This record gives sequence, C-alpha cells and structure tokens, in this order.
Amino acid sequence: MADVRPPAVILSTPQLPENIGAVARVMANFGLSDLRLVNPRHGWPQERAWASASGADWPLNAARVFETVGDAIADLRLIYATTARPRELRLPVITPREAAANLARASADGQPVGLLFGGERAGLETADIALCQAVVTVPIDPLFKSLNLAQAVAINAYEWRLTVLDTPPPAFREGDPPADRAAMLGFFEQLERELETSGFFHPPEKTPAMIQNLRAAFSRAHFTDQEVRTLRGVVTALSRGRGKVLEKLARKPEKDD
Amino acid sequence: MADVRPPAVILSTPQLPENIGAVARVMANFGLSDLRLVNPRHGWPQERAWASASGADWPLNAARVFETVGDAIADLRLIYATTARPRELRLPVITPREAAANLARASADGQPVGLLFGGERAGLETADIALCQAVVTVPIDPLFKSLNLAQAVAINAYEWRLTVLDTPPPAFREGDPPADRAAMLGFFEQLERELETSGFFHPPEKTPAMIQNLRAAFSRAHFTDQEVRTLRGVVTALSRGRGKVLEKLARKPEKDD
Repeated sequence: MADVRPPAVILSTPQLPENIGAVARVMANFGLSDLRLVNPRHGWPQERAWASASGADWPLNAARVFETVGDAIADLRLIYATTARPRELRLPVITPREAAANLARASADGQPVGLLFGGERAGLETADIALCQAVVTVPIDPLFKSLNLAQAVAINAYEWRLTVLDTPPPAFREGDPPADRAAMLGFFEQLERELETSGFFHPPEKTPAMIQNLRAAFSRAHFTDQEVRTLRGVVTALSRGRGKVLEKLARKPEKDD
Repeated sequence: MADVRPPAVILSTPQLPENIGAVARVMANFGLSDLRLVNPRHGWPQERAWASASGADWPLNAARVFETVGDAIADLRLIYATTARPRELRLPVITPREAAANLARASADGQPVGLLFGGERAGLETADIALCQAVVTVPIDPLFKSLNLAQAVAINAYEWRLTVLDTPPPAFREGDPPADRAAMLGFFEQLERELETSGFFHPPEKTPAMIQNLRAAFSRAHFTDQEVRTLRGVVTALSRGRGKVLEKLARKPEKDD
C-alpha cells in the first residue's frame, strides 16, 4: 500500500504555534503531510511553529488555512473527529486502530480522507463533530484525560503507519464511496432552510441542537454522491408541494374561497 | 488484567524538564506512574517539569533519581530499551505492540517490568541498551526519524493500555439501540406517500427501485426511535408547508391574485 494518500490532519482553532509545530513533527514521523488549520488563534504563519517542528518543515510550508471546519474538510470523503466520546451526538465511536484500518481502506480506494482534531482549550465543537462520519477516541485513563494535541495526532498517525505497513490492498472496490463533505453540507443547508421555512424548529433556542442531531444521524449513513442528489430531490419534492398548491390556487382561486 | 503493575518508565539523561513533564502527562494518560530519572541534566526537582505536566503531578512527585541505568533498572525482571535498531548489538527488535504484550504477560506473572528511553540529544548508550532484554523500535518513517521523547513514551504507553484494557469502547452511545423495523417501515411509508403526492417518482416504472435505494440508504444509518420520530417530523414539516400556504391563501386570497 505504498501508493495510498495519507489522511489530512485538520486542526480546528489550534491555540499554540508550538503545538502546530509538534503536530507537523509527528506527521513527518509517520509519513503524513497534508496539514490544514482552521482559524489558528495566533494567525498564520507563525515562526514558533517551525522552531518546534525540529526540521519537519514540509507539512508547515504546505499548510492551508480555512475559516470553517466545513471548508477545511470539503473535499474529503471519509472524515473522523478525534475527541472524547460526545454525549450529545449519536455517532459510532471507534478506536484509533479501527479508524486507521477504515481510512487506509478508503484511501486505497482513491478517496481523500482526514482526521479532525480540536484546539487545546476547547476541543471540538459539537456542530463540527456532526459533520464527521465517526468519532475516534484514544483509550486514555478516565482518571487523567488531558491528552496533548500532538500526542493525539501521534497515536492516530502511528496507527495509520502500522496499518499501511501491514495491510495488503483490498482485492476489489467495495462500492461507491461516500460523498464529499461539501456535498453533504449542501444537502444539510438545503434541508435546514426548508425546515426553517416550514416552522420545524421550535423552540428557536433548540435549533442548533436539533440541526446537530439531524446532521449526525445523516452523517452516519455514508451517503454516496448519487444518494445525496436523490435526497436533495426528496427535500425539493416535499417542499415543492407548496408551489404546486400555489399554482393550483392561482388557476382556480374561487375554489378555495 | 486489571491488577497488573504498569511498567516503570526510565529516562536516561533527559535534557529538558519540559520533556520530563510531558512524559509524566502521557504516563498519566495511559495509567502509568513509576517514573525514574537517570542523571537528569538540569538536576531534580525542576519546577518547569511540573508546569508542563498539565496536572499530572503524581509521577513527578514520586519520581526517583539514579546515577546509572543499571541502578535504575535493578529491581526489574523484564526491561526493554526503546530506540532505533542498534547496529552494534544483537538483540531482538520488537514493535511497541509486541513489547506491550510481553510486558503485560510478565507483569501479570508478578514481575516488575520497565521501558528505558534515551535522552533527547544522544539517545541511549549502547552499554545501557545491552542491559535490556530486547529493543523496542517505533515504526517511524526513515525519512524523518526525529521522534520526540514524550511521543515515544506515549506510543508505548498507549500500546500498554490497549493490551491491559478489558473491553473496547461500545460502538454507539449507550442505551440507544436502533429503532425496530416497524418504526422504520412506518417512516418509509410516510415518506414515500408524501413523495408520491408531490410527483417525485418518475418515470413511474422506476418507483420500486427508487424506493429500495432510498430505504437502503436510510437503513445504513441505524436510526434510533427518537431519530425516527424526528425524521417523521421532518417529512411532516416539509410537506405541511402546503397546508400553511393553503391557510394563508384562505385568509388573504387577494394577495396572490
């Protein structure tokens, strides 16, 4: 499996440039190079990141900065959130080892894949986790859960490298790949717009939580491109009813008065 | 294997107190606590170690200092040197995973066990490696071999914890089984009824295949009872728009003419 593309590493709102450098270093240790930063707190580039990378400059030199997690993962077809088990969302929770196996299989199939990590202080937002297909949890001791960001990347990158060193490529393609996250986001936004219009979200203060739960539920399904197109058609068809009724009424207004 | 004593972590001539603190932190993450220092360069104790341990104080508080590696490992019955493959010595070279399995077996048998790590700059002396029963090599990319000390400890401690952990994490949040098939069927039938009404299925002869594909896509998500109820609400809300439009038109018909 020498030709698989390693997972992108996406850091959401990283705080310290030193930690970004430490992440680049472990990425280089285990053969990863695609680093993406979402709203780094101190801006980008930051000299201190290079200073702490111990010569692992290439992931830093090529790092890309995004404004939202959604933008940063738009091209990926399999994306896992690395975090403690989220209480709010019903997503599969898998080990770094299982994650590496799944990522390697998808990558061998030509799919762009990635791992999403939260910032040092606040971790990942639930809304961003809901964009991922599963949660990867490092099995740390519940008595001391404060895992350093670079360590979390290291464990997952280590498992990735073990997997691609050991595993033979799959003998055949396993079916259509999941749609990229941009397609899913487009579907989510269409659905939520229509639900907003139809008064689905109430009380209003619960809207974000309702949206997150819906997104997580749909994320679990690994919809293909074709399925996402179909689902957009489903939402359009269901809401289009309104337009049809309007047309009908416009033609024969007397019938409804 | 809950009662096994975790391996001691022996750091030979560590340079930076910050790294000792980082080692203590990952030890705590993975349930290790017996830290031993051989000739720490800046002496001991060092406040900066505690500052970088993020609260993992107990391995630091209990750390013991020795003058030689021989002294530090004197009580151990199984000790592995963590380093790149040594050219000079003919010792078994094993992976962190194999090492963890062996250490756990020995520890379960009542043997004190340990892992020896070299300092940041010079690594381990060949003479000290020769006191160990095998060499543990982290499978890093030969293109970038500079592995941070705390990362090397983390990967070995992680493998230790995986080995002694009894149960893997459950795949889903506890207490939320998938909905029964009757609930799913109810949802499918509601959805398909509304799609039929809104003219979604065309050409008509493809309706059965379209329905099957939609059902399969949704089945993959393992929706819970609560999620099925939410999705029924989604379908109702999207199609209810028609009724709302009707009501609105009934109240103010002039506006749409």
